[in-house]
Amino acid sequence: MTILVLDLVGCFVFALSGGLMAVRKELDIFGVVVLACVTGLGGGFLRDMAIGATPVAALSDWRYLVVPMTAGLLTFFFHPALGRLEPMVNVFDALGLGLFVIAGAVKALDFGLSPLSAAVMGLATGVGGGVIRDVLAGRVPIILRRSIFYAIPGFAGASVTAFGLFFGGAPSLVMAAAFVVCAGWRLLAMWRQWEAPLPRGAASV
Amino acid sequence: MTILVLDLVGCFVFALSGGLMAVRKELDIFGVVVLACVTGLGGGFLRDMAIGATPVAALSDWRYLVVPMTAGLLTFFFHPALGRLEPMVNVFDALGLGLFVIAGAVKALDFGLSPLSAAVMGLATGVGGGVIRDVLAGRVPIILRRSIFYAIPGFAGASVTAFGLFFGGAPSLVMAAAFVVCAGWRLLAMWRQWEAPLPRGAASV
Amino acid sequence: MTILVLDLVGCFVFALSGGLMAVRKELDIFGVVVLACVTGLGGGFLRDMAIGATPVAALSDWRYLVVPMTAGLLTFFFHPALGRLEPMVNVFDALGLGLFVIAGAVKALDFGLSPLSAAVMGLATGVGGGVIRDVLAGRVPIILRRSIFYAIPGFAGASVTAFGLFFGGAPSLVMAAAFVVCAGWRLLAMWRQWEAPLPRGAASV
Repeated sequence: MTILVLDLVGCFVFALSGGLMAVRKELDIFGVVVLACVTGLGGGFLRDMAIGATPVAALSDWRYLVVPMTAGLLTFFFHPALGRLEPMVNVFDALGLGLFVIAGAVKALDFGLSPLSAAVMGLATGVGGGVIRDVLAGRVPIILRRSIFYAIPGFAGASVTAFGLFFGGAPSLVMAAAFVVCAGWRLLAMWRQWEAPLPRGAASV
Repeated sequence: MTILVLDLVGCFVFALSGGLMAVRKELDIFGVVVLACVTGLGGGFLRDMAIGATPVAALSDWRYLVVPMTAGLLTFFFHPALGRLEPMVNVFDALGLGLFVIAGAVKALDFGLSPLSAAVMGLATGVGGGVIRDVLAGRVPIILRRSIFYAIPGFAGASVTAFGLFFGGAPSLVMAAAFVVCAGWRLLAMWRQWEAPLPRGAASV
Repeated sequence: MTILVLDLVGCFVFALSGGLMAVRKELDIFGVVVLACVTGLGGGFLRDMAIGATPVAALSDWRYLVVPMTAGLLTFFFHPALGRLEPMVNVFDALGLGLFVIAGAVKALDFGLSPLSAAVMGLATGVGGGVIRDVLAGRVPIILRRSIFYAIPGFAGASVTAFGLFFGGAPSLVMAAAFVVCAGWRLLAMWRQWEAPLPRGAASV
């Protein structure tokens, strides 16, 4: 039950980020709702299709559709207010990332994947929606350009979950540690403006 | 049998739109054929992977491959003539949308999805090919930018199908109503140049 | 065993091409690794999701994850040297294409697909990773723009495999012929700078 609530919160927050991107691109009302849904649900879709958990979870429970639709409509009507709340949205985004990578890694382990594969699926769950959002909006996905904010903490959190559970850690402890690692890293990276190493030298190829 | 013919007509028309986009992007002959196939088959691919109907339908019946390949070759060789026929192509496109959203929603219900999820899958079947076409051609999907032409009538038609059948409506009546709603709306929107509401105010975020 | 080694070599080479693209786009270290992995594994992912071979192969064997990760890290640290080796990378790329389309077509036949569908899946396996790489990097996929280098030899090799095996050819002979057709064509096209026919006349549509 708690898990479901947290999962829906993560979906809601991710959907807000998709809706805001749609407003910035001047899409119309249905475009905003569709981009919000795709962003909130895309990561789980990818994960479920890859591990064979079909029909995918988002289609088996109506709440997974209603929550991002609501987020999209809210963004459409109240985007100026949401803009002022952006720092808070960023915090929720960090929490959403933590929740999604943990949920993704746990589900992949349940389907018999190795810990390394489960960590990759956890990362895909956490960042997949944002990648689809950015591709549809016509830009290079932010998780590739600012990996220190998304891909690195996401993979760290998913790895703690997958390897911790695989080697018999207590689930509640493992997941709490993974959440702190992922969301904490994300918040610290944002606050301290960390940057990941760039390739040295000109791209000669 | 009739269903199959109508489905192949929809696939053919969608493949034409993909081929025309490829000609506009100055792709070569195989690029035109590939983009035509992806546009004609993409929506059904997405639906079948999401609901777990694998191998996907387009791979189980050779006609689903031959029809869009033919459409691609026709576009390559006769695109100036097709350009003059564009109004007619738009009408077929509206009919294709109607056929695809109904077929998608019916198949999703058959796989045990809820009516809301089936409506979403119907929409995905109807617009998925066009989204993939636009992403490969490097532009923001037209269904997000002009949702009143595609996403709204598609979702309306898929919803009529899914909820109508779920609540026990006579299949032929439900599908006829859904087709009229979807294709009629699409044609009216095009003819009267409807526009969906845009977000008010500057994007402040 | 030999097949596995060749498959991993193909994955490694494709991952190098993804890593080089990421360096050119000035992505940071994790962006380079992620784009390398997606390019090396994307084609097989698509194939396995479409034919229902889930969990997809790349998640069932840790070597499929470690190989492209290594390729990504090597690209990040040694991209100037790799740039000087580009002609050799192109040769490996041709060999990788040959290996992937054969492996894809064989697996699709094993899952009961018709030879035509298996040929399409072989092509998708061979070019899928490059398509995803280009979409994420924000450009029209090179396989659509230069189909004579990729899509045509890929489809030729996949067709030789699929129809050859379907009509009872000796597997080793069929696969050797398919490899020569695909990789040979690719190398010849590159060496002689072949070009596929473009649409005649202005795009009037």
